[in-house]
Amino acid sequence: MHSDEIVRTAHALADAARAAILPHFRTDRLAAQNKLDGAGFDPVTEGDRAAERAMRDILEKFRPDDSILGEEYGHKTGSSGLTWVLDPIDGTRGFLSGTPTWGVLIAVSDAGGPIYGIVDQPYIGERFEGGLGRAEVNGPLGSRPLRARGDGPLHDAILFTTFPEVGSETEAAAFRAVSREVKLTRYGTDCYAYALLAAGQIDLVIEAGLNAYDIQAPIAVIEAAGGIVTDWEGGPVHEGGRALAAAGKEQHTAAMAILQAALAAS
Amino acid sequence: MHSDEIVRTAHALADAARAAILPHFRTDRLAAQNKLDGAGFDPVTEGDRAAERAMRDILEKFRPDDSILGEEYGHKTGSSGLTWVLDPIDGTRGFLSGTPTWGVLIAVSDAGGPIYGIVDQPYIGERFEGGLGRAEVNGPLGSRPLRARGDGPLHDAILFTTFPEVGSETEAAAFRAVSREVKLTRYGTDCYAYALLAAGQIDLVIEAGLNAYDIQAPIAVIEAAGGIVTDWEGGPVHEGGRALAAAGKEQHTAAMAILQAALAAS
Repeated sequence: MHSDEIVRTAHALADAARAAILPHFRTDRLAAQNKLDGAGFDPVTEGDRAAERAMRDILEKFRPDDSILGEEYGHKTGSSGLTWVLDPIDGTRGFLSGTPTWGVLIAVSDAGGPIYGIVDQPYIGERFEGGLGRAEVNGPLGSRPLRARGDGPLHDAILFTTFPEVGSETEAAAFRAVSREVKLTRYGTDCYAYALLAAGQIDLVIEAGLNAYDIQAPIAVIEAAGGIVTDWEGGPVHEGGRALAAAGKEQHTAAMAILQAALAAS
Repeated sequence: MHSDEIVRTAHALADAARAAILPHFRTDRLAAQNKLDGAGFDPVTEGDRAAERAMRDILEKFRPDDSILGEEYGHKTGSSGLTWVLDPIDGTRGFLSGTPTWGVLIAVSDAGGPIYGIVDQPYIGERFEGGLGRAEVNGPLGSRPLRARGDGPLHDAILFTTFPEVGSETEAAAFRAVSREVKLTRYGTDCYAYALLAAGQIDLVIEAGLNAYDIQAPIAVIEAAGGIVTDWEGGPVHEGGRALAAAGKEQHTAAMAILQAALAAS
């Protein structure tokens, strides 16, 4: 495996996605389409599709034997054993609202799960990367190592999720059971919450209903920073589902016990 | 009144606040103090205090006859009829969590309320200003005019508030009544939501329990962009309380009717 080539390619994808997306950000009215045909609010912007096309073009040229799993254009099967997992705009609702907390998610996985990932915020110009020996953020304050906070008691923890409904009513109740025990709960960040956990700023992210492309880049970045990402039962979550990300084993164990008790009681 | 001097001074304050705050942002552990002595989670950081001191020093030198109302260091009475209303870090919880949606709020008011305001996001390097003939944002995409979206139906509206609890249970119920009628509700942005409304990205911001220094800069910026900010009864809100900010008269009227009906029913 040529780690340097993978990293270089991943950064090239992130650069291409930035260039494709930014012209569509904060325009007067976004030509959003509703891919659920009115069944829900899940806008797909021109930027989303342009960015995935740009990233796929680069992979076609430089990594033709790799597989691709993309949010917009689906699966392409390759022969190398490596898969590029792409979410050009994670947080389309935030993007449509103009917030700076959506992101471009790029992961590279083998049979065991993600081995490298990037969480990029094009508007801020901030890039979090982890895996293959790297764990750092480059942004407005320069380049800094990523390191999760480590162990700490649940009552001192800062907890994030994207929206208070979380998922099903059962999942929301389990989330609220954890929320009642932490110091602070915040909402509205999409993938940016995982980046903040890797950067040592927060302790827990709990979400449900995730796809593989929503969580693989966060897993790579957080694990490289010393944090933990599993499903709510402590198993692997890189295929999607319910995610529990923690800055240390102490928060992870405590939050998982509460989630499990709440689910068992429902 | 010397408008140019006021604007120049306001930008000097915002520059000084940026320089004072950024060294304290995303540090490993913030030396947060709890000014409510454990009665709630309202951290005050070193950056908060350093920024207000830096801004007051500038005013002492260049605007000694103006009054000052600051979040950290209280009121100073001047003789000019103008008051500088300062919140060095609006959104301290977001700041402590590392999010890029807290802001520096600077307003200048006369007897009638704010005449000019700045909402500054130091980490992104983004500054929204409005009043005295100005309405623009300077940031990663350069300089752009600010213009609220204008009229639109409530069912197409994007609504923001900082946290789902909003305020009292009665206030939260009234907020939820509006939330049920809009297309999308998002949380977690503090003052940044008002900036997004001025930038034409969202339609409504509804909050409660505000202080004068939380809302005066947003009022100036939003009004300069053509939007509307009142209390929940349609009256002035620059002294604080419950705020309803809208991109147009249509959203404002519709949201206010729902808030009033919900409060009357409680």
